[in-house]
Amino acid sequence: MADLSYPQLATPDIVLVPGGAGSRRLVTDKPFLSWLAETGEHSQLVVSVCTGSAVLAAAGLLEGYRATSNKLAFTWASSFGRNVGWEPHARWVEDRDRWTSSGVAAGMDMTAALIASIFGSGVREAAVTRAEYQPQTDSTVDPFAQVHGLT
Amino acid sequence: MADLSYPQLATPDIVLVPGGAGSRRLVTDKPFLSWLAETGEHSQLVVSVCTGSAVLAAAGLLEGYRATSNKLAFTWASSFGRNVGWEPHARWVEDRDRWTSSGVAAGMDMTAALIASIFGSGVREAAVTRAEYQPQTDSTVDPFAQVHGLT
Repeated sequence: MADLSYPQLATPDIVLVPGGAGSRRLVTDKPFLSWLAETGEHSQLVVSVCTGSAVLAAAGLLEGYRATSNKLAFTWASSFGRNVGWEPHARWVEDRDRWTSSGVAAGMDMTAALIASIFGSGVREAAVTRAEYQPQTDSTVDPFAQVHGLT
Repeated sequence: MADLSYPQLATPDIVLVPGGAGSRRLVTDKPFLSWLAETGEHSQLVVSVCTGSAVLAAAGLLEGYRATSNKLAFTWASSFGRNVGWEPHARWVEDRDRWTSSGVAAGMDMTAALIASIFGSGVREAAVTRAEYQPQTDSTVDPFAQVHGLT
């Protein structure tokens, strides 16, 4: 159960839009995109995983930014936005206050990097050790771009 | 919402017990352990992630089997069961119809191996490629055993 409705939200620290089937509907949901655009502009960081970047682009939040998305759905996702520097070969892309990742497992690696960026590498190490996860720390390593014929 | 209550469940193909805070309570929940023991004995595979193996051991489902658990909580988890071959250095352990993994991220690697075991490596590749995940396929690679002083 959500504690607050969308209009009740104050300016968040981080807006994170996940991917999945719901993104296919949200890219044409004008009331939602309007709320997202307004909220994103008042947050410190705007982040997406997988096809969530298509939603960010549809809301105008990636104009003038570099970004990436799920490699299986890259052609669809990168059709959104007017002036987005879509990168077909990247596990995730960090461009100032916009972080976008490729598919869902890439979102884990981006999140580890984001934690390090905000709280330092010691906190990242503590978090990934607790989860017994060995994150990819190089955002340019993306074997799935080749799998899907993007490079 | 669950579709069925515990007594309504027929013999399942796979019983998977996750870990987390709930496992600390379940290891002494006799009605639950009694149901789990009965259900586990009538399922094809009994599987756990993280401290879920403590619950399996408490239910008696790991007697005579090799098993592992979360490395941070290994001392606690391995205190359950009478005749369990607890392995302190393993990302996951497969012993006949019992599969147990270390911490939560190790559960992803075990699951990939389990998918390959049931459906073949082609299905595993399709699943992990879709998620953009590169699983550890060697169950003996466990750097977290050393992190927690178990080897």
